Amino acid sequence: MIHPTESVAAALVKAGITIPAVPKPAGAYVGAIRTGNLVVTSGQLPWVDGKLLHIGRIGAEVSEAEGKACARVCAINALAQFQAAIGDLEAIRRIVRVEGFVHCAPGYRGHPRVLDGASHLFNELFGDRGIHTRVALGITEMPFDAPVQLVIWAEVA
Amino acid sequence: MIHPTESVAAALVKAGITIPAVPKPAGAYVGAIRTGNLVVTSGQLPWVDGKLLHIGRIGAEVSEAEGKACARVCAINALAQFQAAIGDLEAIRRIVRVEGFVHCAPGYRGHPRVLDGASHLFNELFGDRGIHTRVALGITEMPFDAPVQLVIWAEVA
Amino acid sequence: MIHPTESVAAALVKAGITIPAVPKPAGAYVGAIRTGNLVVTSGQLPWVDGKLLHIGRIGAEVSEAEGKACARVCAINALAQFQAAIGDLEAIRRIVRVEGFVHCAPGYRGHPRVLDGASHLFNELFGDRGIHTRVALGITEMPFDAPVQLVIWAEVA
Repeated sequence: MIHPTESVAAALVKAGITIPAVPKPAGAYVGAIRTGNLVVTSGQLPWVDGKLLHIGRIGAEVSEAEGKACARVCAINALAQFQAAIGDLEAIRRIVRVEGFVHCAPGYRGHPRVLDGASHLFNELFGDRGIHTRVALGITEMPFDAPVQLVIWAEVA
Repeated sequence: MIHPTESVAAALVKAGITIPAVPKPAGAYVGAIRTGNLVVTSGQLPWVDGKLLHIGRIGAEVSEAEGKACARVCAINALAQFQAAIGDLEAIRRIVRVEGFVHCAPGYRGHPRVLDGASHLFNELFGDRGIHTRVALGITEMPFDAPVQLVIWAEVA
Repeated sequence: MIHPTESVAAALVKAGITIPAVPKPAGAYVGAIRTGNLVVTSGQLPWVDGKLLHIGRIGAEVSEAEGKACARVCAINALAQFQAAIGDLEAIRRIVRVEGFVHCAPGYRGHPRVLDGASHLFNELFGDRGIHTRVALGITEMPFDAPVQLVIWAEVA
């Protein structure tokens, strides 16, 4: 967990993460918007260089570990959206909310473990400012058959 | 796309849209609430004169084009809710967020195309102020078997 | 419905409700966060003394009446989260939004009746300040096989 005075940029270097270019939206919308002191992303999918990291349902075509890796990639893409929307990740005062949508095979209920892939990353990069609320939902049909979709809300200075 | 100084009222006339009466809620809640500079709707279904425009799952009983028309009607009903809650659509500074819930038959994944029915309308009526974030989820059981449900968040003056 | 000047504490006594200890989160997140004048909970499940009130799908293993009771318990747990996050339920100026996720057996569409279990409680405890917006979604896979999950947004002083 980072020291309160450490920068997010330093934490990203320590974690070996480079913020990617923002993924292109799938329709007539944008990736993130600031309103007042809140910034909210569109639904983030696990795009890596224009391809989904995995495809399918967790508990069937995709393993729990692969799903957790997808949640981490969605979180990194959300940071890319924040950076594009507000210019600087240091302006994030706290991560407020993680909406976690998990593409589940029938009977799969490990949503919390999958979504910890995103939650742990926010805690690692933002320390106390990364502590957030979360909702976990099992979804049967996901755009592009993606295993995970995340929406992130943050409070900004 | 409207000129920044054009009124929403004029854009509605140009699009041939009359804002309907607000649909009656399905339970013990209201259609929209303002909090600070945000206004958020309840889930909007494609009601037209007290009847759903279509009924069933997209990809089965309902075609993609019909689903897209439903998303447009949900968006118009959201505008009715905003007008009832804040008095005047000109007070909308921007559409912030579209939560799009699509009633999918197994294997249907055209959510983004369906939801563009709402997104295009917001872009048409509000111009730059209509650019929004969006999340698209496939839902298996929908209240009243509706094909689409939308929640809209806007920032108001 | 309470008189505008009556305290929430008095309304809780009248309803025979004791605010429980906050349920432990299922992962690396917290139960509620305040941002500006908004406070939002994580997804609340119907935990009672560390056990879910019911388990399974409404319309199959769980009856509609049991589902409605679950929605009420989720709402009480949300109040526990608010109390822990903001210190005092009297600081709630209004309930803004109820996100209602209902674990549905195939073909079950009584979401609004189930969620009224929460909506009626907010109206009973908060009077005019308890009037809220709501979204109702049928979910096929729920964490811990819970019948209902709620997220509550409130505006605070």
